[in-house]
Amino acid sequence: MTIETPYLLFLGDAPDPLAAKVAQGIKDWRPEFAIGQLRMEGCRADMKLPDMDLEQAKAAGAKTLVIGVANRGGFISPEWKKILVQALEEGFDLASGLHNLLREEEDLAAVARATGRRLHDVRVPSVKYPIANGERRTGKRCLAVGTDCSVGKMYTGLAMEREMREREMKASFRATGQTGILITGEGVPLDAVIADFMAGSVEWLTPDNDPDHWDLIEGQGSLFHVSYSGVTLALIHGGQPDALILCHEPTREHMRGLPGYKLPTLEALRELALQLAHVANPDCKVIGISVNTAAMDDDEAKAYLADVEARMGLPTVDPFRHGAARLVDALEAV
Amino acid sequence: MTIETPYLLFLGDAPDPLAAKVAQGIKDWRPEFAIGQLRMEGCRADMKLPDMDLEQAKAAGAKTLVIGVANRGGFISPEWKKILVQALEEGFDLASGLHNLLREEEDLAAVARATGRRLHDVRVPSVKYPIANGERRTGKRCLAVGTDCSVGKMYTGLAMEREMREREMKASFRATGQTGILITGEGVPLDAVIADFMAGSVEWLTPDNDPDHWDLIEGQGSLFHVSYSGVTLALIHGGQPDALILCHEPTREHMRGLPGYKLPTLEALRELALQLAHVANPDCKVIGISVNTAAMDDDEAKAYLADVEARMGLPTVDPFRHGAARLVDALEAV
Repeated sequence: MTIETPYLLFLGDAPDPLAAKVAQGIKDWRPEFAIGQLRMEGCRADMKLPDMDLEQAKAAGAKTLVIGVANRGGFISPEWKKILVQALEEGFDLASGLHNLLREEEDLAAVARATGRRLHDVRVPSVKYPIANGERRTGKRCLAVGTDCSVGKMYTGLAMEREMREREMKASFRATGQTGILITGEGVPLDAVIADFMAGSVEWLTPDNDPDHWDLIEGQGSLFHVSYSGVTLALIHGGQPDALILCHEPTREHMRGLPGYKLPTLEALRELALQLAHVANPDCKVIGISVNTAAMDDDEAKAYLADVEARMGLPTVDPFRHGAARLVDALEAV
Repeated sequence: MTIETPYLLFLGDAPDPLAAKVAQGIKDWRPEFAIGQLRMEGCRADMKLPDMDLEQAKAAGAKTLVIGVANRGGFISPEWKKILVQALEEGFDLASGLHNLLREEEDLAAVARATGRRLHDVRVPSVKYPIANGERRTGKRCLAVGTDCSVGKMYTGLAMEREMREREMKASFRATGQTGILITGEGVPLDAVIADFMAGSVEWLTPDNDPDHWDLIEGQGSLFHVSYSGVTLALIHGGQPDALILCHEPTREHMRGLPGYKLPTLEALRELALQLAHVANPDCKVIGISVNTAAMDDDEAKAYLADVEARMGLPTVDPFRHGAARLVDALEAV
């Protein structure tokens, strides 16, 4: 299941830098996995990595060609096909988080079979997960929960992991979505898991560990987002977190994709998430708040963070702007 | 997707009446669907229906042979095969809620193809469900939520539906598990739905309806059962219930299958379920309590129900012992 590293990042014909968000995530969070980039004519994204063709990347030791770019609609463009087929023939595995599966492209599937290479479609579970048994596991776990979807939960977990590794703490980011899985090379694509096995897949992802080891579990959805709340609750009950981080984006006018739904307050999120977390772990605590202040200028952001910190009595930071150090301090104090 | 009725109930070689629980459910709740029973030698279950062979059932108008019996392990016994193959050849569809799928039995699949009959494996979704959009729908919805799994949620919904139909209220039991689906001939096998589509499948199951129509949504799992809580929350957020019924079994010592977990109080269930339900429907109310008192004698049961009713201030009944009338009274008052 683990994707072999290091990677050659395929940027294809990305129309703009945003389209190469997956590649950027790998470059930012696992630079040691990103040995080079492969760009086609007209590519408008650049990871500032050495440009390589397949042969050069092979010589440099790359094992997997990761599709680091998303087309509109998430499909596998015919223009890419020639390179993907060649990559398999040169001995690369392929990895993708696109909706269209590599394995369902007949030509890619046939060449992969013939060459013995692996096609990693990280949107699809490759494991038969157990039903959750609820037993306590050794080691510690921290989970990011959001007032809404897409408020910076993955970023928060990765930033905390980096800070913890710098402090030589034992920490593992545990990916639960396709971007996270491509960044770390493993994880559970939770939104594609069958209902009965959701919590069990999270237990599987965060097994017994050293008493001083922290899993930083990537959050998904929101307890307040009616489309995905069940996934969030499975994370809380399967993850048995010892610590919760509340994540928030303060300028959003309604829940993502749900115009009729207002965002909850951080107070409401704290109360509800803790109540639910205590079912699986009565000692769970909310230890900090992570705010995505991208839409605010520096002064606004600072004022907002200070205000929330005073109101909630919890360390409140934007880890992108100010680093995750204060969140990790709070974790160390648990 | 709808299973054609009426049914011939296949009891096979049921070792005891409990093994024919599915057939019993159909007989109890949709007697008009149960035209006869087919028993093999040594069968120890009896639905008190006319014993019929395939030919007699065909002549009586039966359309589908329903496997109303579960083997240990839920498999399709080789002894049954001869009859199942014959049934397809005689023009019956087959329906089953067993773990082993009819469609994965090569012989059955081949004969079904050749005869143009349908194999209904109700454990497996046959619909591409949407992602929930959270929009309000017309009509009303009632959902049973439990302190634990298997505390009588399906029974409560079916008993309320029967009482409502007797009062000529508009009511539809909406099945979310395999027994419920076999009883009513349709529904969503929620525990087998992919995480991202759980809430959407519940929206799909309970669409716009007459303003005075009630969906009685079959509950699943429990918010307090860490293995399945995500499924329960998807029901609450996809179902947008106007009314909740709390379900409880008072003699259980721990959560089903989770020796380390105590059952919550009815007060804790009420508070948590309402809080979550209000995200999707701010007007949702808890209107009554359904207690499974099977393990108590009459006096104990009466005393317990009276005690809970006084404590909680809500109509509290065992619908199996005393009928669902008081729960339906409470629903009418909404």
